[in-house]
Amino acid sequence: MTIPVPTPSPRVVRTVAELKAATRALLEAVPGDPNRMRRLALVPTMGALHAGHGTLVRSARAESDVVVVSLFVNRLQFNDPSDFERYPRTPDDDVALLAGAGADLVFAPEESEVYPDGRPLVTVSSGRLGEKFEGASRPGHFDGMLAVVAKLLHYGAPPAETGVPVRYRAYFGQKDAQQLAIIRRMVSDLAYPVGIAAVPVVRSPRGLALSSRNRFLGTEEAEAALVLSRALFLLKERADAHEPLRVEDAEALIASQPLVRLDYLEVVDPGTLEPLAFNCRETPFTGQALALVAAQVGSVRLIDNMPLGG
Amino acid sequence: MTIPVPTPSPRVVRTVAELKAATRALLEAVPGDPNRMRRLALVPTMGALHAGHGTLVRSARAESDVVVVSLFVNRLQFNDPSDFERYPRTPDDDVALLAGAGADLVFAPEESEVYPDGRPLVTVSSGRLGEKFEGASRPGHFDGMLAVVAKLLHYGAPPAETGVPVRYRAYFGQKDAQQLAIIRRMVSDLAYPVGIAAVPVVRSPRGLALSSRNRFLGTEEAEAALVLSRALFLLKERADAHEPLRVEDAEALIASQPLVRLDYLEVVDPGTLEPLAFNCRETPFTGQALALVAAQVGSVRLIDNMPLGG
Repeated sequence: MTIPVPTPSPRVVRTVAELKAATRALLEAVPGDPNRMRRLALVPTMGALHAGHGTLVRSARAESDVVVVSLFVNRLQFNDPSDFERYPRTPDDDVALLAGAGADLVFAPEESEVYPDGRPLVTVSSGRLGEKFEGASRPGHFDGMLAVVAKLLHYGAPPAETGVPVRYRAYFGQKDAQQLAIIRRMVSDLAYPVGIAAVPVVRSPRGLALSSRNRFLGTEEAEAALVLSRALFLLKERADAHEPLRVEDAEALIASQPLVRLDYLEVVDPGTLEPLAFNCRETPFTGQALALVAAQVGSVRLIDNMPLGG
Repeated sequence: MTIPVPTPSPRVVRTVAELKAATRALLEAVPGDPNRMRRLALVPTMGALHAGHGTLVRSARAESDVVVVSLFVNRLQFNDPSDFERYPRTPDDDVALLAGAGADLVFAPEESEVYPDGRPLVTVSSGRLGEKFEGASRPGHFDGMLAVVAKLLHYGAPPAETGVPVRYRAYFGQKDAQQLAIIRRMVSDLAYPVGIAAVPVVRSPRGLALSSRNRFLGTEEAEAALVLSRALFLLKERADAHEPLRVEDAEALIASQPLVRLDYLEVVDPGTLEPLAFNCRETPFTGQALALVAAQVGSVRLIDNMPLGG
């Protein structure tokens, strides 16, 4: 007979000062040679965690000594105030999931802690990067997202007062490819001292990208939605074989499914989200690219993506 | 007979990687209890250093264990490309001045080091703060300034790999009050982990704020320009005495000098640069404020300012 060992719950802190003090204490308590680099991970989330977040946190856990997860529903990235109000808040379930995934510390601030002066006056702008694709239908969304990520990357950073050397990384899902590209670019354009780790899209056995929206798909819709990842894998096969991508074949595959209404399918530069410099429909594929797809499947809008090459 | 001791020249580095390694080495070499906080200072400049910069660096030196000065002429903050080309570049004189002022390390990067991808795609916007006062005649200037300060504050930060605790401050002159207010707001809105230290305006014995432009003033103009600081000191006296400021008296003082053409004289909130919530012309002064003045004196445009209260 085995006695189950309870999963230790991560400590939950509400203020930046508590977060900094707890992070420092955890880093300094990591055993071993004091000159060895301590590995600190931050996983920013808006809560309402699901299996995809679990994968994100377990990836961070596997590569880090200290794992901090933030839970904060960021009003500034919602276009519609009622979407913000309706956004699911499940803090107890979130903490239980994070205990299972091995988080050490949870930062769950009130809005007044993150935005004590109300809306920021000095803002971060995603420019053209944030106007296209998902930004086209959600004006201001990516700038609102950057407003909080710009702060969270600093909140979660190893405090300079820490007396041991630290390597610092923040973990984001590849699922939100445009968000990830914009965050990478902010980190580079503002020279944030943090590594950005992208955790691959988690897929069902048949290829569908996991999303909390999948639960709204009917059986036929869930079957139809498989063409999205099939189209992306078709592009990946050709990219891996250094063949022309012939994106029109992928488009035709999606068009063959009457339940799927394509919004966009584009192959872009992964850094700038601009069209590739070469005609990837006809020229043999080299280098790196990102294939992005969005479609309406019944009443559900789905996005997916695939890094190509490299 | 005394043998003069040569002032040690600060080491000059060109790349961010060299800066980080040298900063870390200097911090770890500070003698004393390894748990004592090391004090790191960054002084960002565009070079062409004069006595005002010397004061800035000596202030940092007096309060710090390690003083880093950056020299970088930032193209993005010039409205007129020919102003950028003509901006004085005096690196040898700068390093000599910095040796005298006690800098430990000089970061003098090439443009390709700071902007390897050309113009940033993700940008920092000063919004309304950067559109008024000096920004009104220099559209984009403050956003261009933020583009480089956003990076420099990260470049100069104690590397997380540093194995000793560090307190980090960046030093700016109060002379450029609007720039300082915008940087303070960026640090707060983006939660940069750095303290901002403001070094008071350095004045001639008769009160004129030191500026590299003063050399272009004729004798009569230099005399006339004194009304600007007199007007500011008049406001300060009333603020210190908790009297109504009666800004019209300060305006009349400036108007009495035919060689001085007032651009603006305003008393604003030091955090937002917005008009004060109370009528400071008639209501007894309380709290904190900032008096800003700009005027044309002959062919020379001068600015000055005075923190009020607190």
